[in-house]
Amino acid sequence: MISWLRTPAVAPCAASRELALQRQQQLTKPPGSLGRLEQLAIDFAGFQKDTNPKLEHPVIRVFAADHGVVAEGISAFPQAVTAQMIDNFVSGGAAITILAKQHGADFGVINLGTVEPLSERMAEMPNLVNIQIGPGTENFCHRAAMTQQQMEIALEAGRNSCADQPVDCFIGGEMGIGNTTAAAAIFCALLGIEVDDIVGRGTGVDDAGLQRKRQAVQRGLVLHTSADTSPEEILRCLGGFEIAALVGAYIGNAQRGVPSLVDGYITTAAALLACRICPSVAEWLLFSHCSAEAAHALVLNSMKAQPLVDLDMRLGEGSGAGVALSLIQSSLLLHSQMATFAEAGVSES
Amino acid sequence: MISWLRTPAVAPCAASRELALQRQQQLTKPPGSLGRLEQLAIDFAGFQKDTNPKLEHPVIRVFAADHGVVAEGISAFPQAVTAQMIDNFVSGGAAITILAKQHGADFGVINLGTVEPLSERMAEMPNLVNIQIGPGTENFCHRAAMTQQQMEIALEAGRNSCADQPVDCFIGGEMGIGNTTAAAAIFCALLGIEVDDIVGRGTGVDDAGLQRKRQAVQRGLVLHTSADTSPEEILRCLGGFEIAALVGAYIGNAQRGVPSLVDGYITTAAALLACRICPSVAEWLLFSHCSAEAAHALVLNSMKAQPLVDLDMRLGEGSGAGVALSLIQSSLLLHSQMATFAEAGVSES
Repeated sequence: MISWLRTPAVAPCAASRELALQRQQQLTKPPGSLGRLEQLAIDFAGFQKDTNPKLEHPVIRVFAADHGVVAEGISAFPQAVTAQMIDNFVSGGAAITILAKQHGADFGVINLGTVEPLSERMAEMPNLVNIQIGPGTENFCHRAAMTQQQMEIALEAGRNSCADQPVDCFIGGEMGIGNTTAAAAIFCALLGIEVDDIVGRGTGVDDAGLQRKRQAVQRGLVLHTSADTSPEEILRCLGGFEIAALVGAYIGNAQRGVPSLVDGYITTAAALLACRICPSVAEWLLFSHCSAEAAHALVLNSMKAQPLVDLDMRLGEGSGAGVALSLIQSSLLLHSQMATFAEAGVSES
Repeated sequence: MISWLRTPAVAPCAASRELALQRQQQLTKPPGSLGRLEQLAIDFAGFQKDTNPKLEHPVIRVFAADHGVVAEGISAFPQAVTAQMIDNFVSGGAAITILAKQHGADFGVINLGTVEPLSERMAEMPNLVNIQIGPGTENFCHRAAMTQQQMEIALEAGRNSCADQPVDCFIGGEMGIGNTTAAAAIFCALLGIEVDDIVGRGTGVDDAGLQRKRQAVQRGLVLHTSADTSPEEILRCLGGFEIAALVGAYIGNAQRGVPSLVDGYITTAAALLACRICPSVAEWLLFSHCSAEAAHALVLNSMKAQPLVDLDMRLGEGSGAGVALSLIQSSLLLHSQMATFAEAGVSES
């Protein structure tokens, strides 16, 4: 096995959490009245080992790759869109790039393997890392999505995607036509949920496509999984390069003491895999939104994950997390900048 | 009656809404995948008569006043806190001032009448307007909270609170020890909800205080209301100066074509009054969050209002709206800056 994958995450600082909790009690507001924003600030105090944590270096990385299972006719969009959207990311026209700019986040794209080659113009873009592991994964209805070696390259790419820079909140996004099918298969395999309860329409597949999508997931499960299949093997057989990279990123970040704000349906599949492989990662994950993609709410519930917002979004790319990032910023600014009762001369209850 | 109160609001521009809807269909994302952020952009296109609306001039006004009903022992905090918090607002230590700064919002406080006089230092603060209508309202358990003349001054103060400047989104906040009691009474009177179902703990009153609060609301309702009491009379008898100012602000803004982002429990009482007095105001109201204060969800539901976030907040001041403002910013930036399929050369489904 890959040696670093199961190294436990560092522990958030309990003393800083306790001091942050005490500070929350002293700020000029009824105790508890900032609700979940109070808890966020306490969590970040633990993450940063600092009573007054800051959000100064948010980092967004979008991982892209193609999926062999698209051959089963499971997507509303043609496979060429994955490479086209990479262009749109690096050119600044995609949703996640707008949100990155809004929040002053460091933004980059990692291509892990598209069917359509990227244009030469793109290869020179400074915010694109091009690691073409292969022209997409294999079709998991017939064979494992990737080889062990391919999975290791993808995991490493995620782990290294922001290892050399300051990061106080990591957002992983994804792009890959067909990847809601891979994510659905992973959820079924890990959670034992019925295929019909977990497979949704993704980017908007029609009824016939939805039926094919369910059948494809079922075939993948029958071919590759049994009761004791390891999470690594589920990832290798049913996942995608970009999903493996997200798993590597969540685990690597937690081992370095960097929290990740999980986006939607696909990234939650990666987060669940990361927690199954390395359980202490769970303490470093925050969940941004509940996707409109079928069954995301059910999956979040099974993970006891409480998303920050529920805006009926289902775009992926990291966009739900990009929207929720401002709530973390609000939480930390309120925590560090509000006056205490004593400072403001306000009477307590 | 006050002549301007029932003047209909201008109508949002249907043509701009339609063009914005068309633009949403062309942006590089599956149709509908930005969920409620798409609808927000379409709403603002109608508000601004512009296919590409912008959020450049958010304005926050906090209205403060004291409440005679505090004599009934219904609050966890002493009444002096109202004036002390006004100081905290203008000094920059309160939650809403931090959120105003985070979003670059124009911020101001309007004092409409505190029991404790404001300090001389405060009187010179440029972001404070001091309209001392009286030392708080009367105790509605014994007489009407305000006179007709006092209510008119408060309504006008709200209407004029940002009339002389550009505003693309208005947030009204409030501060007034005892004002969840007034809001609860207003909800009961307008919606016919039982007192026990609507009265909550406000800033954190104990069980005995909660019992006194329920009794106070019940006495106010018996003394001042019957089946045909007008919304203006409900406001005058049970409301507060700051609630009247919020009603004036919501109505005046809608008449000028300015949308308001409603905050929590108290401001929703003002919003409901505004809609009962001048129904077309409803088209100009957006609801930011569902408060943890008992029964806010029930009231929002009865108004068919869908709040943007639900973060277990119950602070008031406009803080829930202050937090949600960034979602509107995200919505409008995505709408105006994302590339279309044609611009980005991305294939459609």
